[in-house]
Amino acid sequence: MSTTTIKKIAVNTGGGDAPGLNAVIKAVTMSAIQRGWEVYGIRDGYNGIFLPTDYPNHDGVIRLTIDDVKDITSLGGTILGTTNRGNPLRYPMKTAAGAVVEVDRSDEIVEGLKRYEIDAVVAIGGDGSLTMANEFYKKGVRIVGVPKTIDNDLSGTSITFGFDTAVSFATECIDRLHLTAKSHKRIMVVEVMGRYAGWIALNSGVSGSADVILIPEIPYDINKVAEHLRASFTEEKDYAIVVVAEGAYPKDGTYAVIEKEAGKAERLGGAADRVAAELQGLLKKEAREVILGHLLRGGSPTTFDRLLSLRFGAAAVRALEEGYSGVMVAHQVPNMIYIPIEEAVGKMKLVDPNSETVRTGRELGICFGD
Amino acid sequence: MSTTTIKKIAVNTGGGDAPGLNAVIKAVTMSAIQRGWEVYGIRDGYNGIFLPTDYPNHDGVIRLTIDDVKDITSLGGTILGTTNRGNPLRYPMKTAAGAVVEVDRSDEIVEGLKRYEIDAVVAIGGDGSLTMANEFYKKGVRIVGVPKTIDNDLSGTSITFGFDTAVSFATECIDRLHLTAKSHKRIMVVEVMGRYAGWIALNSGVSGSADVILIPEIPYDINKVAEHLRASFTEEKDYAIVVVAEGAYPKDGTYAVIEKEAGKAERLGGAADRVAAELQGLLKKEAREVILGHLLRGGSPTTFDRLLSLRFGAAAVRALEEGYSGVMVAHQVPNMIYIPIEEAVGKMKLVDPNSETVRTGRELGICFGD
Amino acid sequence: MSTTTIKKIAVNTGGGDAPGLNAVIKAVTMSAIQRGWEVYGIRDGYNGIFLPTDYPNHDGVIRLTIDDVKDITSLGGTILGTTNRGNPLRYPMKTAAGAVVEVDRSDEIVEGLKRYEIDAVVAIGGDGSLTMANEFYKKGVRIVGVPKTIDNDLSGTSITFGFDTAVSFATECIDRLHLTAKSHKRIMVVEVMGRYAGWIALNSGVSGSADVILIPEIPYDINKVAEHLRASFTEEKDYAIVVVAEGAYPKDGTYAVIEKEAGKAERLGGAADRVAAELQGLLKKEAREVILGHLLRGGSPTTFDRLLSLRFGAAAVRALEEGYSGVMVAHQVPNMIYIPIEEAVGKMKLVDPNSETVRTGRELGICFGD
Amino acid sequence: MSTTTIKKIAVNTGGGDAPGLNAVIKAVTMSAIQRGWEVYGIRDGYNGIFLPTDYPNHDGVIRLTIDDVKDITSLGGTILGTTNRGNPLRYPMKTAAGAVVEVDRSDEIVEGLKRYEIDAVVAIGGDGSLTMANEFYKKGVRIVGVPKTIDNDLSGTSITFGFDTAVSFATECIDRLHLTAKSHKRIMVVEVMGRYAGWIALNSGVSGSADVILIPEIPYDINKVAEHLRASFTEEKDYAIVVVAEGAYPKDGTYAVIEKEAGKAERLGGAADRVAAELQGLLKKEAREVILGHLLRGGSPTTFDRLLSLRFGAAAVRALEEGYSGVMVAHQVPNMIYIPIEEAVGKMKLVDPNSETVRTGRELGICFGD
Repeated sequence: MSTTTIKKIAVNTGGGDAPGLNAVIKAVTMSAIQRGWEVYGIRDGYNGIFLPTDYPNHDGVIRLTIDDVKDITSLGGTILGTTNRGNPLRYPMKTAAGAVVEVDRSDEIVEGLKRYEIDAVVAIGGDGSLTMANEFYKKGVRIVGVPKTIDNDLSGTSITFGFDTAVSFATECIDRLHLTAKSHKRIMVVEVMGRYAGWIALNSGVSGSADVILIPEIPYDINKVAEHLRASFTEEKDYAIVVVAEGAYPKDGTYAVIEKEAGKAERLGGAADRVAAELQGLLKKEAREVILGHLLRGGSPTTFDRLLSLRFGAAAVRALEEGYSGVMVAHQVPNMIYIPIEEAVGKMKLVDPNSETVRTGRELGICFGD
Repeated sequence: MSTTTIKKIAVNTGGGDAPGLNAVIKAVTMSAIQRGWEVYGIRDGYNGIFLPTDYPNHDGVIRLTIDDVKDITSLGGTILGTTNRGNPLRYPMKTAAGAVVEVDRSDEIVEGLKRYEIDAVVAIGGDGSLTMANEFYKKGVRIVGVPKTIDNDLSGTSITFGFDTAVSFATECIDRLHLTAKSHKRIMVVEVMGRYAGWIALNSGVSGSADVILIPEIPYDINKVAEHLRASFTEEKDYAIVVVAEGAYPKDGTYAVIEKEAGKAERLGGAADRVAAELQGLLKKEAREVILGHLLRGGSPTTFDRLLSLRFGAAAVRALEEGYSGVMVAHQVPNMIYIPIEEAVGKMKLVDPNSETVRTGRELGICFGD
Repeated sequence: MSTTTIKKIAVNTGGGDAPGLNAVIKAVTMSAIQRGWEVYGIRDGYNGIFLPTDYPNHDGVIRLTIDDVKDITSLGGTILGTTNRGNPLRYPMKTAAGAVVEVDRSDEIVEGLKRYEIDAVVAIGGDGSLTMANEFYKKGVRIVGVPKTIDNDLSGTSITFGFDTAVSFATECIDRLHLTAKSHKRIMVVEVMGRYAGWIALNSGVSGSADVILIPEIPYDINKVAEHLRASFTEEKDYAIVVVAEGAYPKDGTYAVIEKEAGKAERLGGAADRVAAELQGLLKKEAREVILGHLLRGGSPTTFDRLLSLRFGAAAVRALEEGYSGVMVAHQVPNMIYIPIEEAVGKMKLVDPNSETVRTGRELGICFGD
Repeated sequence: MSTTTIKKIAVNTGGGDAPGLNAVIKAVTMSAIQRGWEVYGIRDGYNGIFLPTDYPNHDGVIRLTIDDVKDITSLGGTILGTTNRGNPLRYPMKTAAGAVVEVDRSDEIVEGLKRYEIDAVVAIGGDGSLTMANEFYKKGVRIVGVPKTIDNDLSGTSITFGFDTAVSFATECIDRLHLTAKSHKRIMVVEVMGRYAGWIALNSGVSGSADVILIPEIPYDINKVAEHLRASFTEEKDYAIVVVAEGAYPKDGTYAVIEKEAGKAERLGGAADRVAAELQGLLKKEAREVILGHLLRGGSPTTFDRLLSLRFGAAAVRALEEGYSGVMVAHQVPNMIYIPIEEAVGKMKLVDPNSETVRTGRELGICFGD
């Protein structure tokens, strides 16, 4: 517990963007200013700290005022920028000889925070960013994390912001595909995000009346899928919608994603490619695939995500005020609580194949490929 | 616990409509058919039973098939119709002499269910409909309730379907009003549903960046509201959004709603009327009111509400299968549970003025009038 | 024709806001900058010119850069602010004795434009703003107008921006009301903007499957409306949607709006109030009214309006470059043309009761009250 | 001119579906019934006629009533079904020997229409369906066509329904991609429909603030595109959106689509694939592609498309009543007119590279690759 009085805090966003980031930034800013604190935004993850080298023409650490944040609740993206590269613990830099090496620049950041006289940090990010936040905590930085993952696969919190927006847009797309699939009597295979966890596929597939939902947690048997579809076709309903998480894979097979570099996955062939090709072969029926991928990240947050994000942001400032550090704000219905970051990171929250939502899906006649 | 094998069930919807009703009907129908049961829909509350008198030209109890329900998840309203009148325990009927008297027709309904050989009923409705369901339960009908209130004020369940849709549309409307209020430097007073509970006002007001939120749970002092707004006006931000639940009332005053007839409330003057008039007077600034009322009931359910409704419907059928009767399906994160109807009805779930969401609102600079 | 080289232009917005204003501002700014011109925005109509008196703390005339406008296409409202008051030809000012008199400050504006070295002006506004623009033109200001009216009632142009957005949202609201009207077997009377012209009511009513559409151009007979509705009610379809333009009035009656002060109309009782009360009386059926009013002004422009606005803005700059002045950009399918402002103002574009859209409405079974 | 009194008409839909088809069907049905005619829907193009062989279990020609159509205005797809196969002039059938041959079954259809006592037909479809309609006209069938193409590339009519919906959804997707592209500093290449005409790419690209728009009407030079993007990148704006019509092709290259079978095109590699790969190579910057394809066909029609569709449908019935045959309804602002089908088919309406919208795009700083 740190109880030194706070005068200045910083906030940053790391990793892939998720609808609601700006609402978190707003809530952090508004509720800190209400406490008489000054708020600064670090741009592009922590890169904004590396001045003057990296940002010759503008400030990497900017003062945030009420005017800056008051209208951003519904904006997608993040006004602070983010970065997928430049993990400060493994920052790629050129040596004098021209080679690229990975350097640990975390101490520079700790120094930078002192230079700016930042008393505490709210770090908004996913598993990677939170792990990093924990490193800074160990180095003495007063820091509170806000979990961010559009995939909803982060342990420790019942839900994360951005997920409802992603599921909503995926469902809207599935609705659209029903119509065109029906008119053309086709099988439409829709791939949504979800490398390791099938939350988006599950929720959008059930809401969107899919015929089949394939998720990483339930390896599929393509013959069972084909059988299910064959039995479902009638003269009236001669089409199908198959929702596939990008990480779905066959029982006898391997993940459709492979680890490319440390910490990065790459689509291998693609889950939807494979499923569409196999179903077209087995069912002798036109199958088309649609990859929603990037479309799910953008967009204005749903009202649900706006409120959730605002609550996360306000709770992070409360945590700092109450002296917490090294914790992550988590949602545990109906409240926000604080849990040690190290208890939350490195574990994934997966879909339980026996959960009530999966069961609901089965009772609605949806095939999960098993 | 009733363990007789079920062959036929009926489903009906009562009270005001809420987005998601059709999704519940769909889930009930699909999951019952999957169990080999037949499903019948009773039209217009329980009125469909009163054949042949009331429905000369069509069936009041209709067979529901997969084709009838497969495409209704996203439809607003209810395909079965509902009714605000005709409580079968107090059914208005004309006497031979021409007077209108209230008659208890509940036994006719019990008889009607037997006539149709209905083994069990899923009753979807609010506090009134659930109370009625409990009466039928006491008369020996095997019945499971699904709670329905767009106001989210029903005790026993953490959330009800339709609420997210109402909050979302209210927030969209508030967003629109910001723009026009700003351009014209006006105070816009927006009235949303919520006679006794301020859930819709609270959630849409926080999400929609209102300046003031007035709810029944926190009686307001109009002078404090005016003071807050006066202090908030700057050259840049010379307008305000005030969100008012229809049941909001002044500290020294009375509810803006009065009981007109048994069980029915009527807007008296209107909460927004009063607030707008007073603020215009106190602040010498144009104030306009917008009543969202009926607009919040209609509409296609959000994806969140679709999924929630489907889960409620599937859980109701599971409850029947497992032998439950006289219970209501309730959402207790992350699962659906069953609680005795009599424990749920007659109690309201109100906003706690010290809850985390209210606190978040205050930290965002929103005035609650106290 | 003025062919002096332009170096600096100003743009402003006047009157009620309409979705698309920001897109016009963007197109004006981007295409002027591309020509090497500087662009300035005048705030709050022309009030921004009246420095230093009125705007002690900020600039009333601000430089607009690409960064300022690049992301504003989809924003509702106007980043420059507008004003309904402060017509510079009749500007309310206090005399030394404390009385308020209306002063002609137009020469101050002409001087102000010179002070800022503005070579030409793009004035975005309705009938009033365009009339004013024509005054400035007569005083030697190089000026091009862009017509703005959400009501689509401006003569000279086939369509105006903001109208499609208003019609779309009105139709969405009507869709919502169908559902709740149906469930409750009510008559819903929806009032939309349209004091003198019924365009919004007509287009949203036909698109939204209204039963009745009442517009100022076709005075109505309430008995015919009641008769039409009575004949339309069946056991299956026992509700109705009546769309009323705010200026709709009975054949034997008077406008529901009256002139309050010079140039301003006020709702008198309200068209919807009257219609709802009369229909409830005549049909002995619950009738409820919903006033969409302010909700139709706000909101993000539809894609149709975005494109239209961008085209209007770019065409205004082209007009200036080509030496035009005292003209208004008008849409004449498929191109933008320029017409003298004085030919466009003071005339309204009304719905022709024999037009194809009205005829389509009648053929769809919609009653227009005649 | 045929002036025989009409008693029964049929309506059908052919080719790819477009949002608004159901609204046309509704308007045809409602306005025909109002004239005292009976209306029949032919299912799946003309296939519904081929009874009893092809449709053992249900009617291929169904009576349409007001109840069937009253709520379908906003539904995507077509309640009648459509078909991409089974052109009755080249219908694939198996010979006794097992080979598949193409047979002209048009006479069967003419006979079928007589068997059902259909006096006239409203055929809703694209270039192929309209050509077919003209064949039936020559064989003595009283027929009026309603043009349908989501690509807006049909000659003779200023606009077609479904196009506004497609452009709107494409723009919404582009908006979403801006946010994610910005956060990740990527080039997003978005492919939209438009094999031969770039209307969707043009309108959504301008509305969606694309950096580059590539359309078939303006063959592109990838080096110029790369140059434009390189010059556009700043520290603040370090990403780009490139909108590509599926038929866009390089100046020195060939169409990205090839003719696979008679009358069918297939994506060869794909326009977006090619552009993304080349830009990534030239700019050394991550480029990702998103194919919107099928997502643009489905969906509820925008209000604009609803109204347009209703007007097309009502006008088709008017044309039949007035004795027209062999004509297509066309939109010529502000009215619907009738033009001989043979004047409309076989010609495409392409984007004029010098049109005002392209010019607007250029003035907004958008590169068209030339």
